[in-house]
Amino acid sequence: MSDRLREFEDYRHQMNDRIAEIEHLGIKRFFNLDTKTYEDGALDARTKELLGLVASMVLRCNDCIDYHIIQCVDAGWSDEELYDAFNVGLVVGGSIVIPHLRHAVETLDLYRERKK
Amino acid sequence: MSDRLREFEDYRHQMNDRIAEIEHLGIKRFFNLDTKTYEDGALDARTKELLGLVASMVLRCNDCIDYHIIQCVDAGWSDEELYDAFNVGLVVGGSIVIPHLRHAVETLDLYRERKK
Amino acid sequence: MSDRLREFEDYRHQMNDRIAEIEHLGIKRFFNLDTKTYEDGALDARTKELLGLVASMVLRCNDCIDYHIIQCVDAGWSDEELYDAFNVGLVVGGSIVIPHLRHAVETLDLYRERKK
Amino acid sequence: MSDRLREFEDYRHQMNDRIAEIEHLGIKRFFNLDTKTYEDGALDARTKELLGLVASMVLRCNDCIDYHIIQCVDAGWSDEELYDAFNVGLVVGGSIVIPHLRHAVETLDLYRERKK
Amino acid sequence: MSDRLREFEDYRHQMNDRIAEIEHLGIKRFFNLDTKTYEDGALDARTKELLGLVASMVLRCNDCIDYHIIQCVDAGWSDEELYDAFNVGLVVGGSIVIPHLRHAVETLDLYRERKK
Amino acid sequence: MSDRLREFEDYRHQMNDRIAEIEHLGIKRFFNLDTKTYEDGALDARTKELLGLVASMVLRCNDCIDYHIIQCVDAGWSDEELYDAFNVGLVVGGSIVIPHLRHAVETLDLYRERKK
Repeated sequence: MSDRLREFEDYRHQMNDRIAEIEHLGIKRFFNLDTKTYEDGALDARTKELLGLVASMVLRCNDCIDYHIIQCVDAGWSDEELYDAFNVGLVVGGSIVIPHLRHAVETLDLYRERKK
Repeated sequence: MSDRLREFEDYRHQMNDRIAEIEHLGIKRFFNLDTKTYEDGALDARTKELLGLVASMVLRCNDCIDYHIIQCVDAGWSDEELYDAFNVGLVVGGSIVIPHLRHAVETLDLYRERKK
Repeated sequence: MSDRLREFEDYRHQMNDRIAEIEHLGIKRFFNLDTKTYEDGALDARTKELLGLVASMVLRCNDCIDYHIIQCVDAGWSDEELYDAFNVGLVVGGSIVIPHLRHAVETLDLYRERKK
Repeated sequence: MSDRLREFEDYRHQMNDRIAEIEHLGIKRFFNLDTKTYEDGALDARTKELLGLVASMVLRCNDCIDYHIIQCVDAGWSDEELYDAFNVGLVVGGSIVIPHLRHAVETLDLYRERKK
Repeated sequence: MSDRLREFEDYRHQMNDRIAEIEHLGIKRFFNLDTKTYEDGALDARTKELLGLVASMVLRCNDCIDYHIIQCVDAGWSDEELYDAFNVGLVVGGSIVIPHLRHAVETLDLYRERKK
Repeated sequence: MSDRLREFEDYRHQMNDRIAEIEHLGIKRFFNLDTKTYEDGALDARTKELLGLVASMVLRCNDCIDYHIIQCVDAGWSDEELYDAFNVGLVVGGSIVIPHLRHAVETLDLYRERKK
C-alpha cells in the first residue's frame, strides 16, 4: 500500500517534466500561477495549503488531495487539524466525498509512516 | 475481473474501520446520518437505495455506484429495473456518464454472478 | 412569491417552443429521448420522476428541481415522501445543496397551494 | 444593489424557519451537523469559515459564498486575506469561477459598507 | 427581455473594473492569462471561443455562456454552427444542461436582434 | 505504460458490446445519439471532436479524454493544436484539471508512438 503514494509522486514528477518540455506559454504560465498561489501572502502558505486541500476534497480529486496532504503535513498541520479540515470537506460536499475521505485518511497514514 | 468488486469491498471495510478509530465527533455523526438516510421512512429503504444509485451515477462516483448496486440487488430490484435507473442517470448526466455506465453494468454482472 | 413558479413555467414553455423551431435533428432527438425517459417502463413513471428529482438536487439545478417537483406531486407523491427524497439529495450532495433544498421546499409549498 | 444581500438573508432566514417546521429527523440532524462543523475544534471557527468560503467558490454556489463571507468578515478576516482566499478558489476552480468572484467581491463590498 | 443581456454586460464591466482596483497579483495574472487563452495560437481565436462556449455549457454557467456566445457571434460563427456546438454540450452534459440551452438560445436571439 | 491505452480500448469495446446486448431502448437511443453528435454537420466532425475533448477535460473524465484524443489525432489535429485545446480546458477548469492534463499529455504521446 505504501507504494501507492510513491507511485503517484513519481508519475506526477515525470509528467510535470514532460509538460515542462511543451512549448506552450499559456500552460507554462498556468503552472507558474498555480505554484505562486500557495506562497505566503496576506494568508500564510500553510493556511493556503489547507484551503487547497478542502477545495480538492469537495471537487473530489484524489491526486490533488494527495498533493495537498503532503504539503499540509510538511507545513506542520496536526492530524487533528487535518481531520477537522476533512470534516468541512465532508459536510460541504456530502456522502459522495466519503470515498475520497477514505483515500485521504490512508494517504495521511502513509505519509506519517514515511516521515517517522 | 471478479476480484475488482471484492477488492473494493475489502478496502471499503478496512478504511471504514480505520475512520471509526478517529476521534472526531463530526465525522462519526456524518457516517451515522448517512447510514440512517437509507432506512425505511416515508419512502422504503429499497426506493432510497435506488435514489442513492442514480445520485451516484450523475455525480460520477464509481465506488458509490458499486455500493448502491449491491444494496439495490440485495433489496430485490431486477436487472430491468436497474437498467431503467441507469438510463435516468445517463440521460440526466449525459455522455460523460457512459464510462460509469460501463462500470455499473459490469458491477451488476459481477454481483449477480456471485449471488448464484 | 407565487409568481416565481408561474414565471418559470411560462419561460420554460416559451423557450421550449423556440427550441422546437430550430431545425437540428440531434437537439430534437435529445428532447424526445428525455421525454421518453420518464415514461412507464420496468420502473413506473412516478418512481422515475423521483429519481429525476434527486438527480436534479445533487446536480444543483433549480429549474430541474422545479420541473420534477411538479411532476412528482402530480404523480401522487406525498410531502413526507418528497422530504425523504430531499434528504437523500441533501446527504449525498452535502451542505452545498442547502440553498436548493430551500428552493425545493418553497416550490413544493407553492405548488400545493396552487393545487388546492 | 445593497438590497441584494439583505434579500438573501431574509429569504435564507424565512426558508430555514420553514424547513425547521418540517418533521424530518434526517434533515434536522443535517442542519445541526452543518452548524457544528464551523465551531471551534482542532481548527478554530474562523479558519473553518475560510475553508467553507473556498469550498463554496470552487463549487460555485453564490448563496453559500454570501453566507461564508459574512461569517468571515465577522470573524475578523481582512479584505486582503479574503482576496487571497478568493485567489485560491479562482486558481483551483478556473475561469468558470470568475462570475462567482464578481459576486463575492460585490458581497464583500456591500457587507463592509453595512458594517461601517 | 432584451435588457437581460445588457444588464449582464454592464454588471460584468462594472465588477471587472472593481476587481481591477484590487491589488492582488495572482488575481490580475489569472485575468491576463484568461484573456490570452482566447487569442490566435495554433488554434485560431474563433475556434477557441467555440471551445470556451461548450466548456461553459457542460459546466452550466449562464454568465460564461453569454460571454462566449457574444464572442462567437462576433467571430462569425453562424446560428447553425452554434446550434451544433450547443448540441455537443447537451449530449455530453445531459438533460441537466437543458435550462442552460434555453438560456443560450435566448441569448443568441437577443444578440442577433441587437446586431441587426 | 503503452498498455494503459490498449487496456482502456479493450475494456471500452468489451463493455460497449455487453451494453449492446441489453434490451433497453432508451440506452440504445442514447448511444446512437452520442455517435451521431460527432458526425459532420454545420460544424465538421473534427471540430466537434475538439469540442468533445475540451468538454471532457473540464468535466474531468479520463476515459472520455482518451477517447476524444484518439479521435482528434485520427482527424488530423496537430500536437500544437491539441495543446491549445488542453490550455482552454486548463484555464476554464482550473488547477483541478492538472491531473487530467498529465493524463491527456501521456495519452497523446502514447497514441503518437503507436501511429508511427
